[in-house]
Amino acid sequence: MKNIYAIGVGLIGGSLAIDIKKNNPDVVIHGISRKDATLETALSLSLIDKKATLDDLGNADLVIVSIPVDATVKLLPTILDKISDKGLVVDAGSTKVDICKVVENHSKRRNFLAMHPIAGTEHSGPTAAIKGLFVGKTNIVCEVEKTTFKLQEKALKLFSDIGMRIRYMNPADHDKHIAYVSHLSHISAFMLGKTVIEKGKNERDIFDMAGSGFASTVRLAKSSPEMWAPIFKQNRTNVIETLEEYISNLTKFKELMKDENFEAIFDEMKSTNHIKDILNGIN
Amino acid sequence: MKNIYAIGVGLIGGSLAIDIKKNNPDVVIHGISRKDATLETALSLSLIDKKATLDDLGNADLVIVSIPVDATVKLLPTILDKISDKGLVVDAGSTKVDICKVVENHSKRRNFLAMHPIAGTEHSGPTAAIKGLFVGKTNIVCEVEKTTFKLQEKALKLFSDIGMRIRYMNPADHDKHIAYVSHLSHISAFMLGKTVIEKGKNERDIFDMAGSGFASTVRLAKSSPEMWAPIFKQNRTNVIETLEEYISNLTKFKELMKDENFEAIFDEMKSTNHIKDILNGIN
Repeated sequence: MKNIYAIGVGLIGGSLAIDIKKNNPDVVIHGISRKDATLETALSLSLIDKKATLDDLGNADLVIVSIPVDATVKLLPTILDKISDKGLVVDAGSTKVDICKVVENHSKRRNFLAMHPIAGTEHSGPTAAIKGLFVGKTNIVCEVEKTTFKLQEKALKLFSDIGMRIRYMNPADHDKHIAYVSHLSHISAFMLGKTVIEKGKNERDIFDMAGSGFASTVRLAKSSPEMWAPIFKQNRTNVIETLEEYISNLTKFKELMKDENFEAIFDEMKSTNHIKDILNGIN
Repeated sequence: MKNIYAIGVGLIGGSLAIDIKKNNPDVVIHGISRKDATLETALSLSLIDKKATLDDLGNADLVIVSIPVDATVKLLPTILDKISDKGLVVDAGSTKVDICKVVENHSKRRNFLAMHPIAGTEHSGPTAAIKGLFVGKTNIVCEVEKTTFKLQEKALKLFSDIGMRIRYMNPADHDKHIAYVSHLSHISAFMLGKTVIEKGKNERDIFDMAGSGFASTVRLAKSSPEMWAPIFKQNRTNVIETLEEYISNLTKFKELMKDENFEAIFDEMKSTNHIKDILNGIN
């Protein structure tokens, strides 16, 4: 593997480039982005070795697509059109159904591997890229059987080498489950932020009182809308379902408050406390 | 100040004891708790120097009450009954209206200072006590004018010395504002945890997919129900108001999803993004 093309050189694409380059110093990382300024930043941070365009993809051993999921759906067929028979394309999108669907009948489907490396921060862009982001994290691989075995093997080694554990899942299950543990968390944080900001408009004291608990719970509300609006759009049905369940649980809690049933409120919290065990090992 | 009595030697009481002892090595920290096992743990961790009981409080220069807020309301008049004229009692409760109210006509009201040091973690008990917990954090002081000036001064120096900045507020404003930035965050996290746990019961894969974003958003769901049920009870009206606004914002978001109005969803997120600036400096 000599020539890797990173389409998107932000938090995910940039962080992948750092770790892959560290493990494979001879590899040349070519960066592709809509904006030249982004590429210049990525170059200056040494995330990439060279700037490139989509027309160079024939030269690629590996193409890593880490752009908003709506852009991935639009661009993926063109990317596959342009790569050689030995080239592999992987994506890092937070949704998998629409992305897999758009290439299901593509003549180069076997040159594509659908992935979701579950790692990140609330920051975005090339300056958000950090080394070691993927160590100990999970990489969900979808429809692995649809990818040429040799290309699968190559990609899985690359991602294992940067510290990821691989899990296999079909796209529908991926999108359904990730709605709960990732997409809902983002909406919960965004709406918590909104609620407090609305109240705080005329009451600056509120923010003086914000402690580490609030900061942690609302952290994801700093995330990029450019990245997240398309995710919610593609995973609309699942996200609506999680929102309905979340709102229903909050409403029940509110009703218990109104009824002054604090024993039941105690029990609600007690029975959720074992989230401790579930979270063990996640940081 | 020689003899400090810590009623409650958990996360808050224990952490205060550590930092106060460090700044004032000659002080003797006496621990009081319902459970002897808790005091033994606090002794073995050197959070306290000695075990004591409420009957010893006549000897106290300072009493720090860091127990669940329902217990504080019950116990506070008795504590004030027992202290000497030169003794000061402070509490660290997350609610202030009920606590101030229960002592408003007490003959020793001027020996009491109502506080809320806004610091903590999701852990509890003496083993959760850590040094430096209060550095750079805010300590809300309520009804400062009702406390003898010399005793105020003594307490404020002690808390400034452990790194806290002091803010003054009336109890009603405290309880209203803290409902937004602290109490709502806890409910939001508990119900997020509940929603995911309910879904995960039959689908273990969900937890395999949980990343750092989920861990951060749900962190407060590890908090102690013994501590939090009484807080919600005392701050019931304010908490219900914040919940109604939060549920309304989530419901609007869900309706936008149903209407496929992703431009508006983008705007919702974009306009909340400046939570970044608000959170700056909070960790």
